Amino acid sequence: MQRAPARPGDPLAAVETPALCVDLEAFERNLDRMAHATRGIRLRPHAKSHKTPEIARAQIARGAIGVCCQKTDEAAAFVEAGIPEVLVTNEVVGPAKVRRLADLARHATIGVLIDAPAVVPLLAQTARAAGVLLDAYVEIDVGAHRCGVAPGVPAAELAGAIAAAPGLRFKGVQAYHGPAQHLRTPAERNAAVEAAAAHVRATRAALAQARIACDIVTGAGTGTWQHERDSGVYDELQPGSYVFMDADYARNVAGADALAFEQSLFVIASVMSTPAPDRAIVDAWLKAFSFDAGPPVVHGRAVAHYVKASDEHGVLRIDRGSPIGLDERIWLVPGHCDPTVNLYDFLVAIRDGIVEGIWPIEARGALG
Amino acid sequence: MQRAPARPGDPLAAVETPALCVDLEAFERNLDRMAHATRGIRLRPHAKSHKTPEIARAQIARGAIGVCCQKTDEAAAFVEAGIPEVLVTNEVVGPAKVRRLADLARHATIGVLIDAPAVVPLLAQTARAAGVLLDAYVEIDVGAHRCGVAPGVPAAELAGAIAAAPGLRFKGVQAYHGPAQHLRTPAERNAAVEAAAAHVRATRAALAQARIACDIVTGAGTGTWQHERDSGVYDELQPGSYVFMDADYARNVAGADALAFEQSLFVIASVMSTPAPDRAIVDAWLKAFSFDAGPPVVHGRAVAHYVKASDEHGVLRIDRGSPIGLDERIWLVPGHCDPTVNLYDFLVAIRDGIVEGIWPIEARGALG
Repeated sequence: MQRAPARPGDPLAAVETPALCVDLEAFERNLDRMAHATRGIRLRPHAKSHKTPEIARAQIARGAIGVCCQKTDEAAAFVEAGIPEVLVTNEVVGPAKVRRLADLARHATIGVLIDAPAVVPLLAQTARAAGVLLDAYVEIDVGAHRCGVAPGVPAAELAGAIAAAPGLRFKGVQAYHGPAQHLRTPAERNAAVEAAAAHVRATRAALAQARIACDIVTGAGTGTWQHERDSGVYDELQPGSYVFMDADYARNVAGADALAFEQSLFVIASVMSTPAPDRAIVDAWLKAFSFDAGPPVVHGRAVAHYVKASDEHGVLRIDRGSPIGLDERIWLVPGHCDPTVNLYDFLVAIRDGIVEGIWPIEARGALG
Repeated sequence: MQRAPARPGDPLAAVETPALCVDLEAFERNLDRMAHATRGIRLRPHAKSHKTPEIARAQIARGAIGVCCQKTDEAAAFVEAGIPEVLVTNEVVGPAKVRRLADLARHATIGVLIDAPAVVPLLAQTARAAGVLLDAYVEIDVGAHRCGVAPGVPAAELAGAIAAAPGLRFKGVQAYHGPAQHLRTPAERNAAVEAAAAHVRATRAALAQARIACDIVTGAGTGTWQHERDSGVYDELQPGSYVFMDADYARNVAGADALAFEQSLFVIASVMSTPAPDRAIVDAWLKAFSFDAGPPVVHGRAVAHYVKASDEHGVLRIDRGSPIGLDERIWLVPGHCDPTVNLYDFLVAIRDGIVEGIWPIEARGALG
């Protein structure tokens, strides 16, 4: 467990590095913009990005109907924090995990995805034994080729099996296109969501044919949510990263209708060695960032470039004639926000150069 | 904070996934082999790999003189656990961190690296104010081009400044070649360490010239330690990963004299979806592994291959005709052990298919 790197009221300079920080002004503008742009459609932001009940509460205060989680343990952290509506956007298998999921439904409305008839009996029996109803969503494969049953008739058949299982309440369809979030041009993202929407329509038609009511089609992420919102077939949107943004989302080319979400998440690092005029070493490296979407990007210092991380060292290349001093602070934008947040136990919330809050990242490490 | 995924005495099947597990038989053989092979030279294993006091104690019980750490907070976790000798193999800058480092020296022998004269006064004054002596090692750049002063005369000059500073005790030289650990052939690794050893010799000569005693030259890692051991110029070895090994170290070609360290670290995952005959989705992905050295490798199942991870899903490609069932356990070898261990709060220690212990990874997230 980390030590909290600051205390409320501390000036920025007193924050110990490396620290994961959120710029509250940019963060709140992001929340407000999304809330405004999704009026008329359900917003259920994905909490896998932030893992922080304080942020879930800020989203719900602006109209979100609850949150999505990715894992049963993640859901447990949010239910414990009082969030009343949690959808686990994932398949949950195995008796122990299913039992924990059902236990959560005693305290909150819990949804879960299903993509195979084989898992229906265990989920249904466990829910009944716990005296609860679990909301079940059929996950369809809309082109990501990860989890998901085939759209259309196979999805409707699975929905029928769910609807017939006491303990489960068939609630709707999960139609999330993960890879589409990071397609670089708006045209590519739009085409991917158009294809997903066609799969949703086929599934809605097959459900209607089978006389199975479908309350909610849910999906979308920070890269595509405007397309799902405008598709006419989604009832609920699940973007997560918009609260923070990251260097990878910054590489997406915005569409004409794009909302400008701002970078609000930073790791503040310190220079711990300046062994050569063109090189500075910072104290944030492989254990301070997830590098799956590339290295972090130096913020606000055009002369410095994060070029390499090892276990040991984050290496900045410094442009000629622009020396950076020992113990100087460097602000870094994570390459990928979600797995970077998962490395920290605390988020330092900053406004006007002062630490306003230390937010526990309660669901950090919630893998089960 | 994670929930512990098992309890001592549980059978393997009761361990909840994903779980970070250590195979105690392989682990103990690794410890014994290294202890045996380093008789006659000081072994100070690097604890950044395991971050676990239980493991440090097992190393010390076999003759290690203490541990290395990478961060002040990491050192604090080991000092608190009673480890008497901790070398922070890193530069420590800034008043707050230096003060915490000096405080640790009240309870244990603490060493730290210095690679610039500018940091000597703060370290010395803070140590004096705390009424302690800090062991100071000059870090020389032996070819990694990260931190480190130039070998030879510049290193000796820095050592002179340290020796003249009350509060600091000049103890020796850190000469670690990080990139050499992962050079693939023994000849490449040997050449890199030969070059490092030449830099050490030049530095020893410059120190002798300046009449500065050098107790300890320290360095080496799991990829190269035999070369440093046999070089005649190192007094102390710092390998860390040998306790666990990983998929990246497995790609090193062993030398004729290589000791066979065994893979002892695994993530046990479960199959949560089998949407197609050639595809299975497991519950361990970007937040369960560090991917900086490539994806994890499936252990003991030649028919399954970990091909892709997203935030959401770990995708296995399954060879034709070899179906893998829902909720089946898959053992995965992490690509890179150190940053993967840093994702977990507990290590599940397994012997003969039974959970023998749950070891808290006390220094997880210790970034400061």
